[in-house]
Amino acid sequence: MQNEEIQLASRPVGLPDEKTFRFVTTEMPTPNEEEILVKTLYLSVDPYMRGRMREGKSYVAPFAIDEAISGGVIGEVVESKSSNFQKGDIVTGMLNWARYQTVNETSVQKVNPSLAPISTSLGVLGMPGATAYFGLMDIGQPKEGETVVVSGAAGAVGMIVGQIAKIQGAHVVGIAGSQEKIDYLVNELNFDAAINYKDPDFKTKLKEACSNGVDVYFENVGGDISDEVFKRLNVNARIPVCGAISSYNNKEIDLGPRVQTLLIQNRALMKGFLVFDYIDRFPEGIKQLAGWMMEGKLKYEETIVEGFENTPEAFEGLFKGTNLGKLLVKVAEPSLT
Amino acid sequence: MQNEEIQLASRPVGLPDEKTFRFVTTEMPTPNEEEILVKTLYLSVDPYMRGRMREGKSYVAPFAIDEAISGGVIGEVVESKSSNFQKGDIVTGMLNWARYQTVNETSVQKVNPSLAPISTSLGVLGMPGATAYFGLMDIGQPKEGETVVVSGAAGAVGMIVGQIAKIQGAHVVGIAGSQEKIDYLVNELNFDAAINYKDPDFKTKLKEACSNGVDVYFENVGGDISDEVFKRLNVNARIPVCGAISSYNNKEIDLGPRVQTLLIQNRALMKGFLVFDYIDRFPEGIKQLAGWMMEGKLKYEETIVEGFENTPEAFEGLFKGTNLGKLLVKVAEPSLT
Repeated sequence: MQNEEIQLASRPVGLPDEKTFRFVTTEMPTPNEEEILVKTLYLSVDPYMRGRMREGKSYVAPFAIDEAISGGVIGEVVESKSSNFQKGDIVTGMLNWARYQTVNETSVQKVNPSLAPISTSLGVLGMPGATAYFGLMDIGQPKEGETVVVSGAAGAVGMIVGQIAKIQGAHVVGIAGSQEKIDYLVNELNFDAAINYKDPDFKTKLKEACSNGVDVYFENVGGDISDEVFKRLNVNARIPVCGAISSYNNKEIDLGPRVQTLLIQNRALMKGFLVFDYIDRFPEGIKQLAGWMMEGKLKYEETIVEGFENTPEAFEGLFKGTNLGKLLVKVAEPSLT
Repeated sequence: MQNEEIQLASRPVGLPDEKTFRFVTTEMPTPNEEEILVKTLYLSVDPYMRGRMREGKSYVAPFAIDEAISGGVIGEVVESKSSNFQKGDIVTGMLNWARYQTVNETSVQKVNPSLAPISTSLGVLGMPGATAYFGLMDIGQPKEGETVVVSGAAGAVGMIVGQIAKIQGAHVVGIAGSQEKIDYLVNELNFDAAINYKDPDFKTKLKEACSNGVDVYFENVGGDISDEVFKRLNVNARIPVCGAISSYNNKEIDLGPRVQTLLIQNRALMKGFLVFDYIDRFPEGIKQLAGWMMEGKLKYEETIVEGFENTPEAFEGLFKGTNLGKLLVKVAEPSLT
């Protein structure tokens, strides 16, 4: 029986394309002691992975050329040599983009399929949810009546950020890139306002939506969208810096207005963070998110691309802004349903 | 008897020049109840004052056209209608650039002339000292063995920052603009290294001096000097943003590399602050600084320009980088010495 994985064929310059990825047929692996054989059900494509395709210093090691790309995966245990896992268990972890793989029992966590659809463990109850929760609550610290702006608001992290901010009693303004997304944020997620950054009146609309200034800016996109938000900061503003997706594929240095003077004038705080910084507090975050979900205060949205073979296109789509909510690739059905 | 004050004649575009200031002869004022008549002995010229010459939103109200400029002043009480002050008392406060002025008794604090030269209450034991202390200790939080870089290192704030960082056991690197300043920082203040940003090998020397990266960057200057420091940040770096003197006289928007990605990669914190944010804790800061001064751990340096009539030139000199340490104008001798 054969297996298949997706390798990094070459480091992209600018947007990833067909030269970036390579499908490779491999042998079906067999688990050793304390290992399990995992069949991939869903895999996650995330903007941060673009950084790992680049060489050089970053927060995690770059992907190696001619090796499998890895990221968030949900899988089913199809064979177990671990006493902790049984055939049929659903697990999640940072695993390879492969149809099947063997992993050590310590590399994955069990997912409870009775709690919520298993795909949520890559979204609202997984890394994107934890990213939103810790970045907003720990760095942003929104207070009742404050104005919270979130960019990339219709993305996996952004839509959770906005909903948590609403739960905290903030006035929430989302920035996204299509009318469909804007409508979704306002009508389905009850954002107080949402603005399309492609709108020629973006600046005016942002100003109107933030008539009391901006107390928290949850930064997902960087670039000139953010430059506009920075102009509206209030004294003691907080800016959790989660991502800068607009610059990830830049070939040139990303130039913009220097922020020092604005930070001084507003005694503002900017802090970059990674969800991995909060790994010890994950259970706290996921528990709170699950609680809000049960109470009906927190909705989630997924865009699911069908088929392992469509993974490269799904990844490339992240930078075209087509996904609403968490973007996932569905690789296979669980065997036991 | 006549008095004299310096008014803002027009808002400068770019560097302040002779059109910016106007000397005006005024009447000698007489104090009302609860007021004192203060004779100016020293006045302080500081980079932040450039911001107040600009119209529009900033952290303090802009100076008004055709009104006296105000800033840090040390004066002598020459007449008192306040029970809290006697003739001969030395006082300091945010007062007008005038040879004489009446002020309410609540607008000034007494200076103890037996503790240290009175001019230090505009420098190491005044606002610049408190700026260095709170910015570094509260936001920078240097730890033993960490690398602390300070720009504007030979200025009033910078040289105190570097010395406090040394007291905390950090490896201290100063950035300044002349060989004289570099020599002073290394030889007199025991900085571990100091680098001239005008040196063609600035980048290489900065890299060498920060061979373990940068844990704290105390930002006084902004611009492309700071861009270079940002490239060397370590994980969990802290950047107290105190000033951006390189941009204060810019006529155009100050463009540079956007910082978001660097902040994420390094989980770095940037926080703008004003010394006034710490006004409640001033006594704590000044007491600690005075203690270190008594113990011989903290030196200070002043550049004193003689004569009220030379105040505009002294202010303009701030942006030419000619001063070593605190730049003061000596307006008069105390009457009673």
